[in-house]
Amino acid sequence: MNKTIPTITTGALPASQKIYVHGQTHDLRVPLREISVTGEAPLRVYDSSGPYTDPAAHIEISEGLPDVRGGWLQGRGDVEQYAGRVVTDADNGFATGARLTPVFPQHRDPLRAVGTRAVTQLAYAKAGVITPEMEFVAIRENEGRMEAYTRDGDPMGAELPDLVTAEFVRQEIAEGRAIIPANINHRELEPMIIGRNFKVKINANIGNSAVTSSMEKEVEKMVWAIRWGADTVMDLSTGRNIHNIRDWIIRNAPVPIGTVPLYQALEKVDGIAEDLTWEVFRDTLIEQAEQGVDYFTIHAGVRLHMIPMTAKRVTGIVSRGGSIMAKWCLHHHRESFLYEHFEEICDICRRYDVSFSLGDGLRPGSIADANDEAQFAELRTLGELTKIAWAKDCQVMIEGPGHVPMHKIKANMDEQLKHCHEAPFYTLGPLTTDIAPGYDHITSAIGAAMIGWFGTAMLCYVTPKEHLGLPDRDDVKTGVITYKLAAHAADLAKGHPGAQLRDDALSRARFEFRWEDQFNLGLDPDTAREMHDETMPKEAHKVAHFCSMCGPKFCSMRISHDIRAEAEKREGMEAMAEKFREGGELYIPTDDPAKEPAE
Amino acid sequence: MNKTIPTITTGALPASQKIYVHGQTHDLRVPLREISVTGEAPLRVYDSSGPYTDPAAHIEISEGLPDVRGGWLQGRGDVEQYAGRVVTDADNGFATGARLTPVFPQHRDPLRAVGTRAVTQLAYAKAGVITPEMEFVAIRENEGRMEAYTRDGDPMGAELPDLVTAEFVRQEIAEGRAIIPANINHRELEPMIIGRNFKVKINANIGNSAVTSSMEKEVEKMVWAIRWGADTVMDLSTGRNIHNIRDWIIRNAPVPIGTVPLYQALEKVDGIAEDLTWEVFRDTLIEQAEQGVDYFTIHAGVRLHMIPMTAKRVTGIVSRGGSIMAKWCLHHHRESFLYEHFEEICDICRRYDVSFSLGDGLRPGSIADANDEAQFAELRTLGELTKIAWAKDCQVMIEGPGHVPMHKIKANMDEQLKHCHEAPFYTLGPLTTDIAPGYDHITSAIGAAMIGWFGTAMLCYVTPKEHLGLPDRDDVKTGVITYKLAAHAADLAKGHPGAQLRDDALSRARFEFRWEDQFNLGLDPDTAREMHDETMPKEAHKVAHFCSMCGPKFCSMRISHDIRAEAEKREGMEAMAEKFREGGELYIPTDDPAKEPAE
Repeated sequence: MNKTIPTITTGALPASQKIYVHGQTHDLRVPLREISVTGEAPLRVYDSSGPYTDPAAHIEISEGLPDVRGGWLQGRGDVEQYAGRVVTDADNGFATGARLTPVFPQHRDPLRAVGTRAVTQLAYAKAGVITPEMEFVAIRENEGRMEAYTRDGDPMGAELPDLVTAEFVRQEIAEGRAIIPANINHRELEPMIIGRNFKVKINANIGNSAVTSSMEKEVEKMVWAIRWGADTVMDLSTGRNIHNIRDWIIRNAPVPIGTVPLYQALEKVDGIAEDLTWEVFRDTLIEQAEQGVDYFTIHAGVRLHMIPMTAKRVTGIVSRGGSIMAKWCLHHHRESFLYEHFEEICDICRRYDVSFSLGDGLRPGSIADANDEAQFAELRTLGELTKIAWAKDCQVMIEGPGHVPMHKIKANMDEQLKHCHEAPFYTLGPLTTDIAPGYDHITSAIGAAMIGWFGTAMLCYVTPKEHLGLPDRDDVKTGVITYKLAAHAADLAKGHPGAQLRDDALSRARFEFRWEDQFNLGLDPDTAREMHDETMPKEAHKVAHFCSMCGPKFCSMRISHDIRAEAEKREGMEAMAEKFREGGELYIPTDDPAKEPAE
Repeated sequence: MNKTIPTITTGALPASQKIYVHGQTHDLRVPLREISVTGEAPLRVYDSSGPYTDPAAHIEISEGLPDVRGGWLQGRGDVEQYAGRVVTDADNGFATGARLTPVFPQHRDPLRAVGTRAVTQLAYAKAGVITPEMEFVAIRENEGRMEAYTRDGDPMGAELPDLVTAEFVRQEIAEGRAIIPANINHRELEPMIIGRNFKVKINANIGNSAVTSSMEKEVEKMVWAIRWGADTVMDLSTGRNIHNIRDWIIRNAPVPIGTVPLYQALEKVDGIAEDLTWEVFRDTLIEQAEQGVDYFTIHAGVRLHMIPMTAKRVTGIVSRGGSIMAKWCLHHHRESFLYEHFEEICDICRRYDVSFSLGDGLRPGSIADANDEAQFAELRTLGELTKIAWAKDCQVMIEGPGHVPMHKIKANMDEQLKHCHEAPFYTLGPLTTDIAPGYDHITSAIGAAMIGWFGTAMLCYVTPKEHLGLPDRDDVKTGVITYKLAAHAADLAKGHPGAQLRDDALSRARFEFRWEDQFNLGLDPDTAREMHDETMPKEAHKVAHFCSMCGPKFCSMRISHDIRAEAEKREGMEAMAEKFREGGELYIPTDDPAKEPAE
C-alpha cells in the first residue's frame, strides 16, 4: 500500500457556504454554493463539489456518501434487488494479498429493472413522467432562482429558456437532446444534465495506471476534480485492482462516473486485443453496471471498412479504444463485436440506465487529420447507432473532436447535429494547433470554448501534461479551471440566462478595489490571492485603492472614480453627455483636424 | 543598484541553429531558426530572438547590438545627424548619485529627416521605393523559402499571397494595411511587419515600476520575452531612471520597442494629470523619438463628449492613458492636447518614422462594458485620426479590445476594418470572461486566437498575473508562449502558407515516438521535456515506443503502427478500402442494426 495516504480534501471554498434548495414536487434538496460579497447579496453559483464542501457533512470514505436516490428509485416500483454477479480475481487483475485493494466495506446488492423494462430517464420522459432527477437538474440549472434574467448572446441555434422547468427538462430528454447520466446503482448521485440547451459541462479524467495505487488516492483525485468544478469524472484506470478501486470511487462520488469498459475487458485478456470476445466484454458491462457506472464509452462506430481510411493519416488512430477495436477487426477480418452486438449492449444499458457515450475511435490526433473521411464516416455511424439506442430507450451522447484548427471546428458541430439527430455532443478540446506540448490545456481551451458556444454540451478537459505524462494534482486542477473558464465563456456567448451575473459581480469588486471579493468570486480564489500577495502581501493592501501593477499614482480605476465624482458634481453625467453631443462646437477647436484633414 | 544582477540569457534553443538568408536587392541578412529533425530536413521557423540565440554573436550589453540599418539609412540620403535634445534630470525622475542608472556608455547623436521630409516606410512605399526594410520582412515572412506551399484555411477576407515579395510588402504599406515600425534611430532593429496579410504577431509588455530597477534586469526581461517569441516589446516603465533604462533597452533590442509617452510625461509633472501640457508632452515625444522608440501609443481618440458615455459602465475607464486624458479633459473642460495637436504629433513622427499605435483609451474592462457606445465612438475617432496621420505619411496601427465575450468579438474586427480603413488592428486579448483571475492569459488566449483569425495583425499578451500583480520571469514566458500558440492557431485558421509545416513535423515525430524531436519542435522544448521526465526520466525512455499515459500495452499509436503494417502486408490499404466499400455485404452481419433499426 502507498505509505503517504492523502487525506480527502474537505471544507468550503473561501467565503462560500453550501445551501440547499428543496424540490416542490419531489422530496429532494439541490446543493448550491453561495459566495458572500461585501455590500451585496451573496452570489449563488452551480456547485458540483458534493458534500465535501459542506462543513456539516460527515465524510468517511469507508462509509461512502449518503444514499440520495434510494427513495426515488423505490418509488418508481420497476426495479428489483438481486445478488449480482460474483466478483472474480480477473476483475482486479489477479491482485492478491497485500497488493489487493480492500473491498469497499459497505456491501449493497445491486438493482436492475424488473423483467425487460427500461428504467432510463429517457423511458420516463417519453412516458410523460417527471422524475425527481429531472426536477433536481431543473433547480440546479437555474441556480435556485425563480425569476427570469435579461441576457445577451448568440445561441447559435440553441433554445435556452428564461427559466428551466422540470417539464422542459423532460421534453429535452424525451427528444434525445439531453441526458441525465444516472445509473440506478449510483444512489449517491446528485443528478446533472448534459445538453445543448443547458449550461456547458466539463469532464475530468482520472485513473490509476501504476501497479499500485491506493483507493484513497483515487477517491481524492475525484474529490479534487469536482471541488474545482468537474461535472462528471471518467475513471480511465487500467492495471490491477480496477474493480475494487472503482467501487471506492463510485460510492464516494456525487457526480456521474464514466468508464471505457473496453479497458478493463482488455486487462482480462492480458492485453491481447485480438483475444477480446463479446462474452468477456458483456460480462464487464454487467460488472460495471452493477457497480453504478453512469455512462459507458462504447467504440461501436469503428467499422472494418473505415480502418483503411486512416492509413494515410499523419497520426493514424489515436483513440485507445479505437485502436484496440481496429486491431481486433483487422485480425479477425470482420465487424467488431461492439457493432454486431450493439442491441444487446442497449439491452444491458436500459436495465440499469447506463448512458451511452458513443466513442470517437477515429478522432483526429493532429491538425493534418482533422475532419477527414475516417472521422466523419464514423460520426455518421454513431448517428445510426444513436437511433438504435433511442429505440431501446437508452440515453446517448456522442464523443467528438481531438485536434481541429479553428476554421474546421464549426463543421464538426454542424455535422454532428445533422447526422446524430441533436444528441448531445461531448468533445475532447479540440486542440487548435499541435505545436505547444506542455500547453495543450490552452491550445484546447480555445477550441473548447468555441465548440461549446457552437453547441457542444460537455467538454472533456485536457491537462498541461497531455501527450507528455500523467497529470498530477496540480495538472488536474489547472485542467479543470481552464475548462471551467472555457465552458463559462461559451455560456456567456450563448447568452445563458444569468451567466453574466458572476462576471458582473467580480468586475464590480474589481472596480471598487474589493480585493477579497475579487478573489472569492473567481474560479480559483487561492491562486488569485497567492499571486496578489507575491507583490502586495500586507493585509492593508487588501483594501488598498490601487494595485501593484500601476501603484497609487497611476491607477486608472481610481482615476475613473475621480472622473465620475467630478462629473456628477458638475451637473450629472447624462445631461453633460447630451450637451456635448448638441453643442459640440464649444469644445472643438477651429483647427479640428477631424473636420479638415491635412493633405 | 540591485545586488542580484541577472545575466542575459544567451545560447541557441535546443537542437536549433541560427541561419541567415541574404537579400537579393539590398545588403541584408535575415535571421531564421533551423530546428534539426531526425531523419527529416531541418524545419525553418520565424525567429524574433535576435543575436542572443546565435552562439557566434558577441553579446555585451554595454556595447549594444551591432548597427544593422546604418548603411541603409545613409543610402537614402534624406537624414541628418544632429546634437539632439539635452537630457534633463526630470527625464530620469530626478534620480541622482547611486540611484541614477548609468548613462548608456556608447553615445551616438540622433538622426532626423532633413527639413520637412517624411522618412517613413509609408512615404517610401507611396513613392514606389522598396526599402531594405521591406525586402527584409518579405524574406522573413517567407521563412526563407522560395517555393509556394499548399494551404488550407478560411482567410476571413485577408489576402495572403503564396509568396510574400518585397513589392507586395511595399503595396501593403502604401495602402496603410501594414506597418514596419522602424525608427531611424533604432539602427539595431531586425525589421518586422504588422498587417492582416502577414503572420499574426505578438507583443510583450515589460517595464520597471519599483523605485529601483537595474538596467540589466530590464534588458534581460526584453531578451527573455523575444527568446520565446515576442515580436515587439512595449516598455511601460514609470518611475525613476526611465530615460536611461530605455536607452539600455533600445540599444540592445533587435525588435521594435513601443512606449506610451504619456506615462513619462506624467512623471515629469509629478503625477498630476491636470498639470500635463502640450509642451511637456511634445518634449517627451522628441526625447523618445531621438532614443529610437519605434511606436508610440497615443490616446488622441479620447474626446470630451465621450467621457460621460463611460459613467454607467461597470468598470469605467481602465486604460491608464485613457483615464489620465479623461481626467485632464474634464478638469480643463476642453478637448485633449493630443487631439488638438495631433497634426504636430504627426510632424514629429514623420521626421523619425515613429509609427502610431492609436490608443484605445476607452476599451472595455469588463464583459458588461464590451462593444458599448464609448468604445465604438472612440474607434470611429481613431479612424479619422488615421486619415490625418496617413496624409502626413505616418504609419498607423489601431489598438483594440480588452474584455469582450466571444459573440461580440467579430463585430470589433468588422467595425475596425470599416472605420479605420484597414489600418492594422492591435488588440489586448480580448478576455472572454471576467471570472478567472490568475488564468487571464487563458481567458484572453481564446479571444486572441479568434480575433487573430478574423484579421487582427498583432496580439498584445496577457500574463497570469493580469489584474493581480506584476509578472515575474515565469509569467512573462507563460504569457509569450500562450500568445504564440494563439497567434499560430490564427495563422492556421487563416490558411497562412506553410503555417501547418510545424504542426505536421511535430505530429509525425509524435506518431513515430521521436520524443526529442517532439520537444524540440514545440514552442517550449524545456517545459515539454521536464513534464515528460517527471514520469519517464530515463534516457532510454526518450526512444520508447510508448509513453507514461498508457504504458506499453495500451499505446494507441503503437497499435496504429501495427495496424498499418498488417494492412500493408495483406494487400495494400487503398485496395482494401475499395474492396470494403464495394463488397460491404461480406462484412455486414445479417442482423446489421444500422440497416434494420430495432423499434
